This record gives sequence, C-alpha cells and structure tokens, in this order.
Amino acid sequence: MQFDKITVIGVGLIGGSIGLAVRGRKLAARVVGVDRDPRALARATGLGAIDAYTTELASGVKDAELVVVCTPVDSIAPLILAAARHVRPGTLFTDAGSTKRNVVEAVGNNLPRGIHYVPAHPIAGSEKSGVENARADLFHRRAVVLIGSHGGSASPAEQRVRQFWEGLGGRVVTMASPEEHDRALASTSHLPHVVAAAVARVLPPAWRDLSGTGFRDVTRLASGDPDLWAAIFQANTAPVISAVNAFREQLDHFCELLQRGDGAALVDWLAEAKRGRDALGS
Amino acid sequence: MQFDKITVIGVGLIGGSIGLAVRGRKLAARVVGVDRDPRALARATGLGAIDAYTTELASGVKDAELVVVCTPVDSIAPLILAAARHVRPGTLFTDAGSTKRNVVEAVGNNLPRGIHYVPAHPIAGSEKSGVENARADLFHRRAVVLIGSHGGSASPAEQRVRQFWEGLGGRVVTMASPEEHDRALASTSHLPHVVAAAVARVLPPAWRDLSGTGFRDVTRLASGDPDLWAAIFQANTAPVISAVNAFREQLDHFCELLQRGDGAALVDWLAEAKRGRDALGS
Repeated sequence: MQFDKITVIGVGLIGGSIGLAVRGRKLAARVVGVDRDPRALARATGLGAIDAYTTELASGVKDAELVVVCTPVDSIAPLILAAARHVRPGTLFTDAGSTKRNVVEAVGNNLPRGIHYVPAHPIAGSEKSGVENARADLFHRRAVVLIGSHGGSASPAEQRVRQFWEGLGGRVVTMASPEEHDRALASTSHLPHVVAAAVARVLPPAWRDLSGTGFRDVTRLASGDPDLWAAIFQANTAPVISAVNAFREQLDHFCELLQRGDGAALVDWLAEAKRGRDALGS
Repeated sequence: MQFDKITVIGVGLIGGSIGLAVRGRKLAARVVGVDRDPRALARATGLGAIDAYTTELASGVKDAELVVVCTPVDSIAPLILAAARHVRPGTLFTDAGSTKRNVVEAVGNNLPRGIHYVPAHPIAGSEKSGVENARADLFHRRAVVLIGSHGGSASPAEQRVRQFWEGLGGRVVTMASPEEHDRALASTSHLPHVVAAAVARVLPPAWRDLSGTGFRDVTRLASGDPDLWAAIFQANTAPVISAVNAFREQLDHFCELLQRGDGAALVDWLAEAKRGRDALGS
C-alpha cells in the first residue's frame, strides 16, 4: 500500500473511477467517499469504488493522508478550504478539475500550515456522467496535468501527488502555471465542447434521420452535463472566448476560399487539418 | 438473384462496400468493378468485393443491368453521360454522391432514350478511404436518400433502384428535390466536416498531448480525404455557407451569454444541445 486513507470528495464519473482504480491497484489501505447525495454513495459502494462513505465532510476527511476533490469546478476551492479545517497536519489535497486558475486563486495562501494542495487535471472523461459509468482504467495512459515545478525541484507534496496519479496509470505532465493550463485546455477541451453543442443546436429534428456517424462523432460531447460545463466555461471565460475567436478565423478563411471557388487552396486547408488530426491517432 | 450484372464505377470505400454487400447478399449474378487505378481493382478482387474488373469504362458497363457510380462528386455526371453511350436500353444508373443538385443538373435530359438515372446518397461512410476499409455492413440500417417521387407514383426505374439500396440493408428515404437534399446534408454532414477540420487546425502541436477522447471525437472527420471533400464543398457552396452562418450565430449567442456571465442561460443553451444530441443515440 502506497497510501493510507484516501478520501474522494464527489463520487461521480471521475471520483468513482479514481476509487475503482485505487482499490483495483491496491494503492491505498482505505478509500472513503464523501458526497451530498447518499444514493450516489450507496451506488459507489455497490460498484466497489469505495470502502466506506459519509455525507459529512468533517468525518470523511478526518485522518486522510490524501483528499481528492472531484466535484464541479466552482465547488472545488470552497470544499478544499472547508475540509482543510478538519484534517491532520501533513494531509495532501489534489483535485480533478477541468480549470485550474479559479481554484488556485481561491485556495491561495488560505490553507493551514502543513496542509498542501497540488492542483491536477486528468485529461480523461466521457460525455456520460455518474458513478455508474465509472471505469477502473479511465486514467490508463491518459495525460494528467499537475501544476507545479519540474523534476528535482518538485516539493515533497508534489512528488507524492505525482505518485498518486501515476499509480492510477496516468502520464503526469507538469505545467508551471494554472493560466497556461487553462489556455491550453480552452483549445483542447472547452472549444470542442462549445462546437459540439453548437452543431447539435443547428440540426432541425426533421433532418435527424439524415445524420450519420460523422455527425454523431462531432456532436457526442454535447450530451455532457449542462451544469458541469456551464461552470467550466464560466471559470475560464477569457481563454474560451479567445479559442472560439481563433476557431472563427479558421471558419472565415474556409468560407472565403469556398466563395472564391479556390479548389486548390481548399484542398490545402483540409490537408493541413488532416495532418494535425492524423498525428493524434484514432 | 434480384439483379443480373451490376457495374460499380469507383472501387473505394463506398464502391468496395457495395460490392461486398451485393456479393455477400447474393443480390446480383455478377459485380464488375471499373476504376482508373488497376491496383485498387486488384485489391477489390482480392477482398472479394468484385467478380471481375476493367479500367475501360465501355467494356465495364456493357450489358450491365445497373451501374452504380461511386466516384468523387465532380466526376459522377461526366461518368454517367460517358457510360450511357455504351449500355443497352433499359440500363439503370444510380450513384452514391454526397451532393445531388450538381449531378442532377449536369445529367439533365442528356441521357439516351430508355436509360434512366435515379440519384441516390447512402448516409454512410468513414473518415477512412480506400477499398481496404470497405465493409459489407456499411449500409445496414443506414438512411439512403433517393431523389424521386413517393410510393405509388414512383417510376419503375425508381422502384428498381429502391430495391437495390434496400437489398444492401439501407432504409430508403425519398426526397422530392436535389436542392432539398443538398440543404439538409449541408447541416448534417458538410458543416460537421468543416467544423472538425477547423478545430483540428486550431490545435498547436505542443498541446496535442493535452487532448482527450472528446477532442478526438470532434475532429475525427478531419482525417477524411481532402480532395474528396473539397469537391463536395464546391458542389454545394451556397448551402454550406448558409449552414456555417447558422452555426456561427449559435457561437455568437454562446459567447454573448458567456461574456455576460449568464450562467442560467448557458445551462439552457447547453441543455437544448444535449436534448438534440441525446435524441440521436450513440
């Protein structure tokens, strides 16, 4: 066992998958789940994602060595600050939030001495939500961004949290600032979500039957949880607007080539997109 | 055997899949492949998609009961008109092109008496191309648009071509005009392709590692063949521009709500997208 007690706050898709992976890989002596929703906690127990649970934050985090916060991005910092009042010295916090600047700023220097927060974001998920869609292998070979310092200069807290995410199968990538993370994720994750939703909104019901697998692929993300995503967009407004504007310039360019009837330039435009996409693999 | 000799012009993903389905379902006595590329023809034969082949159009279509044209959209009409000079009276033509107005207009009234063209578009495909990616079940339960008249008023040619596409497992949907088809497909297929390519183009190589399954889903179509798609966009310029504009209005609306910080309206915007997407199934 690399860890003693781990507490997971929020047992949805991400928290549940963390529990399944920790227990499956015997990474901790005990996994305790904390959630507002007792039914989610009961389901998580039934699925083997947690050993025990409580709806009370204070008792849930008591004596935890590591607390992993897996709630919507607007509640992560408040929960860390509230939980920090009930943990023993040396307890580590990490999280799985899709935005980092808002959490890092709100946690700030407000933690008690000896309590450390190492911001994280596993690049893994699904358009499906809830612990019933959790998977033990969700993080396998997935990038996990840690906000921290590189290699030898990493603090003991950062090194320990890195061990945790690597223990789940993740490939840890360190980024120096939460702002850098949020700018990158605006392009790699938040923009695709906006685009998927906007395409889904354009389709009149009468034409649903004329959509194929391509339409389904492009719009799959639009099935995501609206509350969860509204919170993400609001926690990352400026970078998301910038990413949408960069994308809009691409559309403008495409329309200009098309209206000009410049077939060769259209082929080039599409070929560059293909090179970028092919580099990612399926 | 419902058909005698069927000739497939263009043995790529679609033509190859038609050959596999016709032969697998014993729909025709013989499937002959015609293509400019002798290697594609040899591969199609090796994969069991065709019984025989030739690179010569005239001998390939001779004595065919049905000719199915599966080439890029800008070459379909020229090939139908050229082939029509070498077929026997009563021969039927259909095609698998993603745009219909350009083909219908170019074929016009230029066919010899007794030769009929029934425009079709199976809503099936893949971002992969080439006969090596062909699948016998590609059309199974997929919508196939026929441009024609409904039910009892359908011409014998249309009824026969409908039998063909239904024989491949498709669900035939009749549309009265090629313009209606092209407007619908601009939203259900061409717009998603533009969007996928534009998102792929926005991603700097340095951030590739930070993209997850969502980014891959949204951009999958960008791996499609640039020449094929440039031809589709050019054959459907005005409807594609309209669809992009409708999509752009959705983006504008999203950005306005986000900049205003209107969380409730953002949730509604996302929830409507989710309802539309959930209605399609996975």
